[in-house]
Amino acid sequence: MSSNKPSLPKGTRDFGPEQMIRRNYLFNIIKSTFQRFGFLPLETPSMENLSVLTGKYGDEGDQLLFKILNSGNYLSDASLEDFQEGSKKLLPKIAEKGLRYDLTVPFARYVVMNRDLTLPFKRYQIQPVWRADRPQKGRYREFFQCDADVVGTESLICEVEIVQMIESVFAQLGLANFSIKINHRQLLTAITKCIGADGKESDFCVAIDKLDKIGLEKVVEELSERGFSEKAVEDLKPIIEIASSGLNQLEAIKPFISQLPEGQKAIADLEKIFALLKKSGADHNHLTVDITLARGLSYYTGCIFEVKVHDVQIGSVSGGGRYDNLTGVFGVEGIPGVGFSFGVDRLYDVLEELNLFPENNESTSKAIILPFDEEAQYYGLEVIQKIRQGGINAEIYPDVVKAKKLFNYTDKRNIPFAIIIGSEEIKTGKLSLKNMKSGEQESLTVEEIIQKLS
Amino acid sequence: MSSNKPSLPKGTRDFGPEQMIRRNYLFNIIKSTFQRFGFLPLETPSMENLSVLTGKYGDEGDQLLFKILNSGNYLSDASLEDFQEGSKKLLPKIAEKGLRYDLTVPFARYVVMNRDLTLPFKRYQIQPVWRADRPQKGRYREFFQCDADVVGTESLICEVEIVQMIESVFAQLGLANFSIKINHRQLLTAITKCIGADGKESDFCVAIDKLDKIGLEKVVEELSERGFSEKAVEDLKPIIEIASSGLNQLEAIKPFISQLPEGQKAIADLEKIFALLKKSGADHNHLTVDITLARGLSYYTGCIFEVKVHDVQIGSVSGGGRYDNLTGVFGVEGIPGVGFSFGVDRLYDVLEELNLFPENNESTSKAIILPFDEEAQYYGLEVIQKIRQGGINAEIYPDVVKAKKLFNYTDKRNIPFAIIIGSEEIKTGKLSLKNMKSGEQESLTVEEIIQKLS
Repeated sequence: MSSNKPSLPKGTRDFGPEQMIRRNYLFNIIKSTFQRFGFLPLETPSMENLSVLTGKYGDEGDQLLFKILNSGNYLSDASLEDFQEGSKKLLPKIAEKGLRYDLTVPFARYVVMNRDLTLPFKRYQIQPVWRADRPQKGRYREFFQCDADVVGTESLICEVEIVQMIESVFAQLGLANFSIKINHRQLLTAITKCIGADGKESDFCVAIDKLDKIGLEKVVEELSERGFSEKAVEDLKPIIEIASSGLNQLEAIKPFISQLPEGQKAIADLEKIFALLKKSGADHNHLTVDITLARGLSYYTGCIFEVKVHDVQIGSVSGGGRYDNLTGVFGVEGIPGVGFSFGVDRLYDVLEELNLFPENNESTSKAIILPFDEEAQYYGLEVIQKIRQGGINAEIYPDVVKAKKLFNYTDKRNIPFAIIIGSEEIKTGKLSLKNMKSGEQESLTVEEIIQKLS
Repeated sequence: MSSNKPSLPKGTRDFGPEQMIRRNYLFNIIKSTFQRFGFLPLETPSMENLSVLTGKYGDEGDQLLFKILNSGNYLSDASLEDFQEGSKKLLPKIAEKGLRYDLTVPFARYVVMNRDLTLPFKRYQIQPVWRADRPQKGRYREFFQCDADVVGTESLICEVEIVQMIESVFAQLGLANFSIKINHRQLLTAITKCIGADGKESDFCVAIDKLDKIGLEKVVEELSERGFSEKAVEDLKPIIEIASSGLNQLEAIKPFISQLPEGQKAIADLEKIFALLKKSGADHNHLTVDITLARGLSYYTGCIFEVKVHDVQIGSVSGGGRYDNLTGVFGVEGIPGVGFSFGVDRLYDVLEELNLFPENNESTSKAIILPFDEEAQYYGLEVIQKIRQGGINAEIYPDVVKAKKLFNYTDKRNIPFAIIIGSEEIKTGKLSLKNMKSGEQESLTVEEIIQKLS
């Protein structure tokens, strides 16, 4: 029968109870923090029309979209010619829908389709997304995003609250050694302008983004390859050096960019964010300006963020930024927004590596009833009813088996307390409560057990 | 720009904040009840290999599976001949994966792939499923299932706990007028045997399932059409009449089936369930035997359940049953199980129609800070930091706008309290707390506000 042995699609995962309990711990902290800051829940469908998704993530993104075959006779609109011209030509004839690639584009679609929303609108969204990427360690084809976005305001208070939410979530998770990097899209524009490389922000960002990994010399090389003039590269060197100098980068970059309007805007925004944070009295020790932070520039237009954890060898664990006109692609202009996403899969790995998941949890059984015979089963059902009514998560072993098997099961399941019921216990009404960790055993009434376990 | 106006795929829905808050209320009650009964969380991927899904839901089910196009050049394995033979022949060449159709088959796959699971294994799973059904009122192409299953035991305690969980969830939801119908697969087998129609259980069930809707006469007609002999139909009449007689159906059916082994097994199981429920002291007033309950007979082998709500014109809102060998299709025999699923979309509609959703909820903002100028914004950030640290969900209006707009926003958002900050408030340190419902306004310190809102 091994021929029909089932398997999982590449890049996807089952989450068994142990992982789910830990994931829920992480999700609950993020969710309650979003709620503490006034974000409202939203969920959108897993599938979107391809017309909504296509062209929003660049050519590479389009390639990585999972497409869903039309139902029924999906070939009814396809001609032999379509087939012969290949998969690209045939695609629109056989597939209208795709799986969502992120939560931001569906959110923009939602905003456009619900024009009666009260703005500013703050929403959080925690759902899986799908990308047909080559799976590798830490990269999956199905993974969760935890996003919070505000649309309908340009207020920098939103940026301030993003920093506060990151600080709050990380503090609750027990993570202390991390940094929140902030930069501004217009700061990058100002830099390219001041070295005479207007319009080459994209190339500049791709190259500068690698500074961490490949070092200044290689970045300079790449810039030349990408068509930056010798003079531009020369002008850029002192700017790049700021990044590794240990100086206050915002102060150090000022002389280079403060004569340009983009530079002035970026400086003003960043300074105001720091001022507001200081005034709020919230912890923001982890926030630093990093003028080489580039990230997803396709739709960001203002501040951009990224979070790095220092104790673990892993990329950025969260990120976000401000966008002026995400709804513009759907024909509705003038709704600015700013958003942030916690990378839960990487955060999970970090917490596991640093051993930061709590040992106990409230969601699993605190006690199991172990009945020694059929009479004890009947009695046990009466007992467990009371225990559950007392607000305690509990279960009853459903079969009559040997004592050894009962205790083995309880051990394997990691249930902290066993309530043993045999003929003696039924006679006296005093049940044996066994602490599975210490081995300690007490004779107690049901009421005493409830009190003890509460 | 109206040409790129976005839309949702047919049969799918966005869940905005108001719906999400209500859905979460419903999900939380179900989830905490599952946990109270010792069920552990599990999540499986949205996509499964088609080899896992196909053939598990009958021909019609196979048609309703959403198939995912292979990534990259999906035509690379497809020949002109495949294309010309049509969509059925081409399918396996261009699509390997599909979206899950329910949570039961993925669960069986999980059990088979994790043979080291400690049995009995109780899991709950709350995730969306997808079916390419024709959308209509109450029927969607993406909808959530809330399943709880136990595998690895034949104990009827599992059936008892299913009844208890239903009673508990419905009581928490404030639903009193409902019935839990129970029947037994072998009771149906016994009936077909005793009228000499062995092996025609399926046809019998399809016909009998319509008794409610079309009445006895039409059911008799349909049975004849389905090849039941005149004598069989005649023998069946008194049995069917039991169902509408108002008698205790289990007692009334006994004389007909108690000489058959299947009948004896069904009677023994059902009687034991009632006996265990009585002993447990749990409420089970809603449970009644319905010998015409047939439901999804493809894999059920023992007890079957269905829940109907009486005050609302809607089909069954939940259901489940025992299956002997669901893992058998994946080559692993001998793992019995029993499961139950809450139909959340229908339950949502019922609660809405009966106005049973709570008015208040803990997850949205209890207060909003309304700053009258920029200085008040700075001050407000300090205030809100303290309020949030006091455990209160709160937000701050991010822009400086006219007072009227601030209060309009607060009203529309349905936030119960506004904290008004102007120059007077900053000077005195006494903030104005306005109860938006009563209009009452008080002058209080931040600490007093926290105490009041806690």
